Amino acid sequence: MAKLVIVGSVALDTVKTPFGHVKDALGGAATYSSYAASFFSKPGIVGVVGPDFPKQHLELLQKRGINTEGVAVDKSGKTFRWEGYYEYDMNEAKTVSTELGVFASFKPQLPQSYRDAEYVFLANIDPELQLDVLRQVKKPRLVLLDTMNYWISNKKRQLLDVVKRVDVVLLNDAEARQLFETPNLVKAAASALKLGPKFVIIKKGEHGALLFGDGSHFSAPSYPLETIRDPTGCGDSFAGALIGYLAGKNTSDEKELRKAIIYGSVVASFNAEDFSLERLKRLAAADIEKRYKEFERIREF
Amino acid sequence: MAKLVIVGSVALDTVKTPFGHVKDALGGAATYSSYAASFFSKPGIVGVVGPDFPKQHLELLQKRGINTEGVAVDKSGKTFRWEGYYEYDMNEAKTVSTELGVFASFKPQLPQSYRDAEYVFLANIDPELQLDVLRQVKKPRLVLLDTMNYWISNKKRQLLDVVKRVDVVLLNDAEARQLFETPNLVKAAASALKLGPKFVIIKKGEHGALLFGDGSHFSAPSYPLETIRDPTGCGDSFAGALIGYLAGKNTSDEKELRKAIIYGSVVASFNAEDFSLERLKRLAAADIEKRYKEFERIREF
Repeated sequence: MAKLVIVGSVALDTVKTPFGHVKDALGGAATYSSYAASFFSKPGIVGVVGPDFPKQHLELLQKRGINTEGVAVDKSGKTFRWEGYYEYDMNEAKTVSTELGVFASFKPQLPQSYRDAEYVFLANIDPELQLDVLRQVKKPRLVLLDTMNYWISNKKRQLLDVVKRVDVVLLNDAEARQLFETPNLVKAAASALKLGPKFVIIKKGEHGALLFGDGSHFSAPSYPLETIRDPTGCGDSFAGALIGYLAGKNTSDEKELRKAIIYGSVVASFNAEDFSLERLKRLAAADIEKRYKEFERIREF
Repeated sequence: MAKLVIVGSVALDTVKTPFGHVKDALGGAATYSSYAASFFSKPGIVGVVGPDFPKQHLELLQKRGINTEGVAVDKSGKTFRWEGYYEYDMNEAKTVSTELGVFASFKPQLPQSYRDAEYVFLANIDPELQLDVLRQVKKPRLVLLDTMNYWISNKKRQLLDVVKRVDVVLLNDAEARQLFETPNLVKAAASALKLGPKFVIIKKGEHGALLFGDGSHFSAPSYPLETIRDPTGCGDSFAGALIGYLAGKNTSDEKELRKAIIYGSVVASFNAEDFSLERLKRLAAADIEKRYKEFERIREF
């Protein structure tokens, strides 16, 4: 098992969907992705919280073998809070409020013990901070990058600078179209690959995911979920399980990357079944393997 | 090879996309679908045209082994004309004008030689006419149904009546959501299956297609097309190749239906590469087999 480090937000989410609501529930990209990764490897996370952050949340992660040494407690403010809701079609999160709190001045500091990480997931944060993280790791074998539309609109140059330095870029379809200014996902992926990454993964929500590499293409099937209670964290669960699987196997070849995408899809599909990390907390390795087999069957022809 | 009959529109289309335009080009659901089916079987079509319909269009179909005996020439008016355009993202056809012409009083009359058809494709027409067609065929082995949002809005009761009498229902994702009043495609498919059909196929455009049957599910991968010049007729090409393949093999089991969906996706992907039937006219069986193999590779994990 190779060393994996995940850098991103740790948050308290207030979420409402047609199927329920939660207040100040555990959330954040680093939280979801490290929890998802913990089914396959033992990640260390880097993030920041305020003194208001409940201790049991960190203990929950620690119990999963997640190293939380890199989670700073900043006494100058409150934990990052996000409030949002989903309408009936559950496709898009609508933000009610974002209180950055201590996240506003977040400067990721990797503990010495993290700096020889071989696998790194740069979850969605300011691309300048992502670059700063890359300067702190010695010689990673595989860096996975995530981002969001806000950085494409506001720090595109810096974001493209990060894209050039990573191995795998993760975008959803709208982000890919926006970043590379084309409605055609094949063209967007080709533009991304020209910048340097070996692979581009385009997430299409309920429609599955696409992998583009040098001359290769993989289309991961979507999983037919009848019960979607809260899609918050699905993208992060996908990314976390994906890189967790690769770190667990200590590989980065395309064959394993395809499997990693399916494991990512499997864990994300479970995550959508309940609020916050509730479904992942009840998830067993056997559940994951069972649904992985279902993914094999649904793509068979 | 089993007998296949296709009932639907034969039209002259004026289409503009960011990549070119055509005026009064050959189009219509029965045209696209029978041409696509002709790669796998020898369909007979039922439709209507005016005296203005160019003879060479019918000759084109006849050269493919398509029986055009069921295409009536109605001297009382003009051939159905549709004018539309696609914007940059190519996802949705915008209609400029629809001149129904002789199609307004279309009453499908199956020639005697068609009435023992074993495979029937009811392309998108008024559900009352679709019911009328079903009364004219003796004992079909498999009936495939297509429709559009207009009939869901305006003749929902009659449409549901047709759904009850067919074997396979074809809907795009928006139609499935509208017809069964749920954003969740799994629930929409379950509602459709409850009415009687053995299978429901949900087309998701560039995102591939889903097949739902009794307790089974298949997710067909999308094909990464870099060049989309005109998506007109892709849904009809998909349906035509699908039922053409089934009729050619004289089968309706799920294993072959999954393959039929891939053949449908293959032919539809070619169709999008040029205007009207231009790409299909240049298409060879070997091209189809080659792309089918690509579909096998892109879903492999």
